[in-house]
Amino acid sequence: MSENINTQTPPLANGGRGAHVCLTPALLPLFNVEDYIVVVIDIFRATSSICYGIENGAEAIIPVSQVEECAAYREKGLDYLLAAERDGSVVEGFDFGNSPFSYTKEKVAGKTIVLTTTNGTHALHLSRSAKKIVIGSFLNLTALSNWLNTQNENILLVCAGWKNNFNLEDTLFAGAVVDQLKDKGFVLDDAAIAANDLFQTGKHDINVYLKKTSHGERLKKLGIEKDIEFCLQIDLTTAIPVLEGEKLVKLKA
Amino acid sequence: MSENINTQTPPLANGGRGAHVCLTPALLPLFNVEDYIVVVIDIFRATSSICYGIENGAEAIIPVSQVEECAAYREKGLDYLLAAERDGSVVEGFDFGNSPFSYTKEKVAGKTIVLTTTNGTHALHLSRSAKKIVIGSFLNLTALSNWLNTQNENILLVCAGWKNNFNLEDTLFAGAVVDQLKDKGFVLDDAAIAANDLFQTGKHDINVYLKKTSHGERLKKLGIEKDIEFCLQIDLTTAIPVLEGEKLVKLKA
Repeated sequence: MSENINTQTPPLANGGRGAHVCLTPALLPLFNVEDYIVVVIDIFRATSSICYGIENGAEAIIPVSQVEECAAYREKGLDYLLAAERDGSVVEGFDFGNSPFSYTKEKVAGKTIVLTTTNGTHALHLSRSAKKIVIGSFLNLTALSNWLNTQNENILLVCAGWKNNFNLEDTLFAGAVVDQLKDKGFVLDDAAIAANDLFQTGKHDINVYLKKTSHGERLKKLGIEKDIEFCLQIDLTTAIPVLEGEKLVKLKA
Repeated sequence: MSENINTQTPPLANGGRGAHVCLTPALLPLFNVEDYIVVVIDIFRATSSICYGIENGAEAIIPVSQVEECAAYREKGLDYLLAAERDGSVVEGFDFGNSPFSYTKEKVAGKTIVLTTTNGTHALHLSRSAKKIVIGSFLNLTALSNWLNTQNENILLVCAGWKNNFNLEDTLFAGAVVDQLKDKGFVLDDAAIAANDLFQTGKHDINVYLKKTSHGERLKKLGIEKDIEFCLQIDLTTAIPVLEGEKLVKLKA
């Protein structure tokens, strides 16, 4: 656009709440994060596993960037479950990896889990000044959207992406939330419109849609196709994980 | 994505050329720009006016960021046409603004024009290390796509956006180019897939599609609706502007 044409919707433009999408954490500096409730999205697999774990009674989940940080919790002697993977396998000496199948009631109820997720932690860290930070995935889509609609705040859907790159799965989920909010008086920015239109294109079979992407083959090689399918289930859960200090806990209704 | 799952297509992945989309200049540092032919895209209105001006025989177009830089060319005493706008009106003392209607044969044939475009210049500057930089708009869509297909290089479609923000019109055009390349053996990244799917959603009436965007009202206020319509015409021109030093000139076949 020419320099003199402002295309951006400022927060609470036109007297309405904004529902905006940040397509990768690299674009977060363009937003006044403190004006928003932020939803962090990392569909494969961090935020899906977090939603499932909190639903299944995990007391808290602590996201960290690196396997070494995760290991440090063991050395502290605290009674945490430690989750860390490399190349799709659980790192030796850790309790489990990032597969949502590890976050069952039997394993996580009443426990605190330290979860290694580089992209998710990066997005959380950059969003720290938000009014509130919650966690979204297809698993808690409708519960999350309904709650967002009850808040009188601007919403920023932050796609964790991969190493700051745009990715389709996180964007599609952002579009799914926009789809539930768009008729509730929210003002959408261009990225929210785009995300929603992509969701419309893919929603009839999200798994098939995402197979078009460049990393379909790679995911296959990692043997996490079952995880992928699991993460694309809509409304399996209702818990909304919220950040309190360093911990993600269940939002109280 | 989890830290251990690489979703990004590296250049020339799978032995094929990459057709990748950089959704805003803020994401350019994520690409090895020197591995690509870059197409700079700033549909409303810089790159549309540049395509039209070069088609109509302008000897060269020099893009600059600021009105003051543009004015400096006058002080140099050079016989350039100076184009600068503020708030949709030609700045006093300048020859014309950014409307493509100013770039007719009668006005520009044989001339060098200094064009003020903040976002376009920003994108050009950040792309400087590319193998080649060309200019795209709906006006030269097919000529540009055909030429790109004859080059044995990775293609990076750089959306100039607005102050580093994502915008729909530049992304839709990137998707239109991907549409012409996608069956020619190019490997697409997630952003290219997304841009193409958005183009599929909007292509039946791009003008109507873009009216959904947040800035439809703003463009109306600026009174540049006729410019917008003009910029959305497909294949009105065949010239491909290419950057040589500081100047955009016609690419020789």
